[in-house]
Amino acid sequence: MGLILAIDDLSVKKALEILNDVCDYVDGIKIGIPFLIRNSSSDLKSLKTSCTKKLWIADLKLADIGYIMVRTTDLIAGFFDAIIAHSFVGIKNGLDELARYCDENGLKLVLVATMSHEGAKELYDFALIRMRDIVKQVNPWGLVAPATRPEVIYFLRRTLGSKIKILSPGIGPQGALPGEALCAGSNYEIVGRLITRSNSPLKAVQEIISAQKRKLRECGINMR
Amino acid sequence: MGLILAIDDLSVKKALEILNDVCDYVDGIKIGIPFLIRNSSSDLKSLKTSCTKKLWIADLKLADIGYIMVRTTDLIAGFFDAIIAHSFVGIKNGLDELARYCDENGLKLVLVATMSHEGAKELYDFALIRMRDIVKQVNPWGLVAPATRPEVIYFLRRTLGSKIKILSPGIGPQGALPGEALCAGSNYEIVGRLITRSNSPLKAVQEIISAQKRKLRECGINMR
Repeated sequence: MGLILAIDDLSVKKALEILNDVCDYVDGIKIGIPFLIRNSSSDLKSLKTSCTKKLWIADLKLADIGYIMVRTTDLIAGFFDAIIAHSFVGIKNGLDELARYCDENGLKLVLVATMSHEGAKELYDFALIRMRDIVKQVNPWGLVAPATRPEVIYFLRRTLGSKIKILSPGIGPQGALPGEALCAGSNYEIVGRLITRSNSPLKAVQEIISAQKRKLRECGINMR
Repeated sequence: MGLILAIDDLSVKKALEILNDVCDYVDGIKIGIPFLIRNSSSDLKSLKTSCTKKLWIADLKLADIGYIMVRTTDLIAGFFDAIIAHSFVGIKNGLDELARYCDENGLKLVLVATMSHEGAKELYDFALIRMRDIVKQVNPWGLVAPATRPEVIYFLRRTLGSKIKILSPGIGPQGALPGEALCAGSNYEIVGRLITRSNSPLKAVQEIISAQKRKLRECGINMR
């Protein structure tokens, strides 16, 4: 159980500063679309070499036909251990092609099972059972489920078993408290702005980890 | 009614060559995620200045929380007239924020109502009515619906009215013939590989336009 730092729209300089401070304390780094569009592959490389032996996740939230998802992933595969795609696109000529590419290239596939914002209730939750079944069939390394709705995490954990990794965004500006998702069955909490916008990212990370540990003691789970 | 060229994973050089040949014959250019990740904003600029007065569409297939979709769009807004996002992310704290940004910045919003590959039948079609209602509520400039399933285009056109623009991918490698989507109610057919992989992109475009016109005569619609 742990903490993943989300870097979405920082400059390379700022991202490097924050990584230097917090690298030792986080389990992974998730890089969002704005950063990937704004910066070059050499920027990505310098970022990655500044914080090795962590789980590096490309969060393009891929949601296209298989051909485009594979072409996109192929462009960034060298810099990442895992990529995130939407389960909503379905399997045939979609996730099947992406999963095959990931298998063949030693990449971890993470599927969004549902999202953290209010709008996820309009469609993503409505189709939750089908989404869960798609995740089951694709059998990816991990899934994304929102810290803002622990009951969804709990449901997915109970019905998909203990092997799949659950990654949960939504802590901080979106409303969830550190540790709540871990208590519901997540393996990682994803935190961005609460760390990147802090005057002291290191202090923010340490406070989040303390809060996670407190919450986990409350719910009777041993961390790490 | 017309034709949009899709540029997904070409080099800048190749894209410029093709655009020089076919610019006069197409109504718009849709740029996909691989191209946007691989190339810089100055590449985008040179592409755009090589073929002006056309509809330039950024096809990131945005599917994230509102904050990330807005940040991403803001990075590329200067180069495009329209952007594509997925309707399945829902409205609250999602598409509402993106639609507001588009309104304020004179960008056309295009929502994916459903997709062109087989996998779209697993989830996207299952939720078609809800998807249609989200499109109705957001009231975007346009929507994406697959040329591979004209019955879905027909349904969306009949239930959403004549004002909304319908853009249809899926012609060529994915199986639809030029003109089929237009006959079902689309405004634009989106064609990529059938043109970009041709030995003569210009000839490919001219043949597609001829085929569209033939098909439209068959179904009794006057083109342009």
